[in-house]
Formats: sequence, structure tokens, C-alpha cells
Amino acid sequence: MKFINETISRIKPVDKEKLEQAQRRLDNKTKPQGSLGRLEEFARRIVAISGVQDPDVSKKIIFTFAGDHGVTVEGVSLFPREVTPQMVLNFLSGGAGINVLSRHVGAEVRVVDVGVDYDFEGMSGLIHKKVARGTKNFSKGPAMSREQMVAALTVGIELADQCRADGVGLVGTGEMGIGNTTPSSAIIAAISGKTVAEVTHRGTGIGDAALVNKIRVIELGLALNKPDSKDPLDVLEKVGGFEIAAITGLVLGCAANSIPVVIDGFISTAGALIASELHPCVREYVFAAHQSVEIGHAFMLERIGAEPILDLKFRLGEGTGAALAMTLIESGVKILKEMATFEQAGVSQG
Amino acid sequence: MKFINETISRIKPVDKEKLEQAQRRLDNKTKPQGSLGRLEEFARRIVAISGVQDPDVSKKIIFTFAGDHGVTVEGVSLFPREVTPQMVLNFLSGGAGINVLSRHVGAEVRVVDVGVDYDFEGMSGLIHKKVARGTKNFSKGPAMSREQMVAALTVGIELADQCRADGVGLVGTGEMGIGNTTPSSAIIAAISGKTVAEVTHRGTGIGDAALVNKIRVIELGLALNKPDSKDPLDVLEKVGGFEIAAITGLVLGCAANSIPVVIDGFISTAGALIASELHPCVREYVFAAHQSVEIGHAFMLERIGAEPILDLKFRLGEGTGAALAMTLIESGVKILKEMATFEQAGVSQG
Repeated sequence: MKFINETISRIKPVDKEKLEQAQRRLDNKTKPQGSLGRLEEFARRIVAISGVQDPDVSKKIIFTFAGDHGVTVEGVSLFPREVTPQMVLNFLSGGAGINVLSRHVGAEVRVVDVGVDYDFEGMSGLIHKKVARGTKNFSKGPAMSREQMVAALTVGIELADQCRADGVGLVGTGEMGIGNTTPSSAIIAAISGKTVAEVTHRGTGIGDAALVNKIRVIELGLALNKPDSKDPLDVLEKVGGFEIAAITGLVLGCAANSIPVVIDGFISTAGALIASELHPCVREYVFAAHQSVEIGHAFMLERIGAEPILDLKFRLGEGTGAALAMTLIESGVKILKEMATFEQAGVSQG
Repeated sequence: MKFINETISRIKPVDKEKLEQAQRRLDNKTKPQGSLGRLEEFARRIVAISGVQDPDVSKKIIFTFAGDHGVTVEGVSLFPREVTPQMVLNFLSGGAGINVLSRHVGAEVRVVDVGVDYDFEGMSGLIHKKVARGTKNFSKGPAMSREQMVAALTVGIELADQCRADGVGLVGTGEMGIGNTTPSSAIIAAISGKTVAEVTHRGTGIGDAALVNKIRVIELGLALNKPDSKDPLDVLEKVGGFEIAAITGLVLGCAANSIPVVIDGFISTAGALIASELHPCVREYVFAAHQSVEIGHAFMLERIGAEPILDLKFRLGEGTGAALAMTLIESGVKILKEMATFEQAGVSQG
């Protein structure tokens, strides 16, 4: 916990003066003031986060964290549990959605095993950070021990620290874990006080009966584990997941290292929500990639104070929404850096 | 008119069977069915439009048409009229918003003078198709003659025909013309029957008094010219603009040549609306890049039946929204072509 607390204590508000300086610079570009809308918001926020007037976001990395979930024995997902390691192999061979979209936008995908129920030992291309072979079934007891939660969260922080050292300009989150909308809904319900039914949806596409069961399982888990809504790490430990904890750590670490972080969809936002509850300034470093189809997502984004960049009706995860949002953010930075001013272009002002 | 009518007669419905084939192929990719939402829609529509199972959209061109407007003497814009040629020069030297965003997404910008009040003679890098040095003030009489309307529209069709010959996979529309939200609002009001006030907004950022005047000027022009709402080309001629007519031609030409066309914001959509009123199948070839801040845009998109891809609070034009939407469409095509199937990746199905 010492390392986590030290990381949290490094988080500071972004530089408001640089934010305003960047907007003034945008206002001198050859366009009506504010006419590039959110692209201007992205540009000024990246300046304020990085503290650099000409930020370089060309080095973009998406971390796709993989973990399994004990709660899958309760029949909460459409897909069998073995799909988690199968998809990890798909990521490593470049055939998954996240690979295609990351290549398209010039981002690198780094796949992290933080808790898959499969032995990947010695496999190259994978970042080996397994905490355990899946969480425990949270409808029967806590999903993980405190030590495991700390270990998974530390994985994310250390990766963010490494990004700082490597000059990464923009980080994206992603995940893979059959069953992981279930702990995500549990986290939102625990923290927001919303009913489970209000924040629980069909995940990969379960039917009506399975949805009723999924809600029941989450309600059972919350009633049994009684996570303390005022203690986000207690919630994470009792009903979370290893990949979710790693995302929490990555978001905290990015905020501590002044790196902008783009959170993907429903599960990533659950991880970011925990981080945001731990320090009020975390939100200043966060960009919400898209509005997920999954209900409950909007509640979380509102609580984090993040407006989604895209609404493409995604419900895949992996970091797919983050990849596309990252290229829009990058385009905003290029507007700041590359557009001519009225003076440079000899254009009359309004 | 013969050439225009011949072009319209070449427009056919897209291939519905290929649309379904493409969706079946997407359903075998390693993801829950439909989980990439609109990216899947883009991919299957591009297949159906192009008629090719593995469409190549790597060659992307945005046409930015420039024209001036006689109605600017009525004080409808915040910026002086000379900004139109100044911005054309800015486009040619690569310093404008459209240049930055096109470079970012790997699209080429082609700048077309279809009616700027400036002598660009002999200037390289510009496509010289000037019909006249600006339209006439439509609050005093028709904006253009029938011959001029036909000439401007023909410019767009011929560019689309050339795209077909050159193997262009995806076309975007853009425009520059101080005052051109005014004819655009006039077109929507004339065609939709909405009041002028319902479809007229602040353009580059005019204040309250100027907005009242702008509405009055448009009402005057409609009352004087009495465009026939059942005859879209009459509307275009009486209250349109040269760049708007060229966009109408480009959209018609793309539909006739089975090329997907991404329409930018408010002004581009006015051009596309005219095209869409001329043939019911035009809409099948059109992608709406984004939801403009300008009121009246939503009415047009609804009438065309197009759902905007982005909502980034843009109100710049030039093709800036189209550029960003084009890269999202391209990413959808890559999902179709590059993602592994369940069988290829050895992933279990749900």
C-alpha cells in the first residue's frame, strides 16, 4: 500500500495557466474562434497535462490487460472462460480488433497477463504479471485478497512509470476477461448507490434469463461482501478483477506522471472510476474514449466528469474505442502545432 | 442539363446481397456479433456501394470547393469577403485546418475554385473551374443563372467521374466561401418548409442583431425568388452558391460511379440534400461526417436519412469533419479485411 499511497500523493492539478495559453494560441489559428470544438479542448488539455506547449503524442501505447473471473461459474457470460487465453493469443498474433485499430492509428498494443487462468510461461510478446489464475467467485466471498489487489494495481502503476521514462505521449487502456462486465457493474453499484439492475446489461450479448441471473449474482456478492462504498480499494478487492485493478493502477500512474490517459469502455471506466475516487485530480488526466452500449457506463462517466469522445455503439472492449479516440486527440494536438496563424497566412480576422 | 440527367439516370440502388454477405463475414470475426457497432455498418455499406468484397479505400480525396456570395453585402458574415481567396491560398500552402487533418488521416485535399471573386489565373495546385466571380445577391434576385448552376454542378460530376477512373476509394466534400451558411439555410428552408428562423444560426460567430438581419435577408430572398420546393435545381439556382452546386454534382457523381462519399457539415449537407432530392438512391452512397453546431443541420440529415458519425462540436467546414470521419470509415473496412475469424484464431464461439 505504501507504493500506491506514494503514487497518489504525486498527483497534482494540471497547469491551468498553460491551458489558457494554449487556447489563446488556438484562437490565433486561421479559423473562427472555437470552431474546431472538442479538438481544441483535446489540444489545450494535452498541453495542460503534459506541461509542454508543443506536446509530442506520436508515441501512443494501449495496454490490454487480461484476467479471468471466478464468477463465470455462475453463468454470467455468453462465452466460455477459455476464450480469455484464446483471445490473448489472438492479440499476440495481431488478429484481434484492437490490433487492427491500433495499427490503423499508429499505436502500439502491449498485452499484459495480470490474472489469466492459463499458463503462458515463457511466451514472448506478452508482459507476464500474473497475480493469480483468475479471481475467486465474488458471489461466495471476496474476489481477491488485499495483497492480490495491491499487486494487480501495482502492475498498472509500474507500467505508467515506465511510460514516463520512455517518453510515451498518450496512453490507452483496454482489457480482456470473460465475465468482466459483472465485476464492473458490481463496482459501479457499490460506489454509486445505484441498484444493480440500473447498471447491469448484456455484456457480450446474454439473453433475458441470463441477465436476470447476472443481476441476482451481483446482488448476492454485494450483500455477502459488504464493500465499503467510501473505500474504493475495498470495493475493488471484494468485487473487482485483476485487469480492472491494473487499469486503476495505470490511470493513477498516468496522473502521477503527467501522462494523458484515454479510457476505453465499460470495464476500463470501472477501473478509472476507482482511481478517480482515490484522488479528485485524476479526472483532469482522463479522456473518455466513447459511450458504450452497456448501461451504467453513462453514470460512471458523469461521476468521473468525462464526456465521451465517440459514440459508435461499441461493446467490445480490448481498447478498441481508446484506439480511435487517441487518433482524434492526436489530430487536435496537430491543429495546435501545425495550423497557420492569421498573421502567418495573411488572412483577415473577423 | 443533358449531362446532369444522364448522370442521375446512372444512379442505382446499392447491392443488398453484398451488404448481407459482408455482415455474415463480420459475424465470423473474433468478437461478439455486432460489438463493433457502426464500424461494422461502415464496412458492410462500403462493400455494398463499391460492389467489392475487399474494398480498397486507401486512396482518399477531399474536394474543397471555394466560391463567393453576393449576399455578403447584406452583412450576413463576421468575416470580410476577401477571406475566401485568402483561405484558398492558405489551403494551397498547407496551413489550414483541412490540411492538418487530411495529412493526419492520409487523405489528399484538392482545392477547386468554382466561383471565388479573385483572379487565381495560372496558379498551380489549384483546380481552376471558376464559373463566375461570386454569385449575385439573392436578396435582390436569383443567385445565379440556370447556365451557371449547370456549369457549377457539372464541375462536381466531372471530378467524381475522374475519381472513378483514378481508383479513388473514398471521397469527402468540403467548402470555403464567406457567407455560405446563408444560402445553405435558404436551401433547407425552401426544401423543408421549415421557417428560416428554425434553420438559421450564427455561422462563423455573428451576434444577435446580425442573426436577426441574416434571417430577414434570407426571408427576403425566398419571398422575392419564390424557388419551387419541388424542383431542387430551381432552389439551387435561386438561392444557392457555386461551391454548393459543385458539392451537389460531386455527390450525384459519386452515387453514379459507385463511390462512397462523406459529406462534411452544414454547407456540404445542403449540397447533398439537393442531390438526395434529385434521386432517392443517393442517400445509399452518403455518409454524414458529423453533427454540426449549426442549427438546421439535424433537419437535413434526417431528411437525407444519414446518421452523423462524429459529434465534436465543429463549425468550421472546409471538409474538416469529413477528414476525421473518413479515417473511422477506413478503420471499419480494415476490421472486415484484417481481423481473424474464430476459426483462424482458434477462439471458441459463444
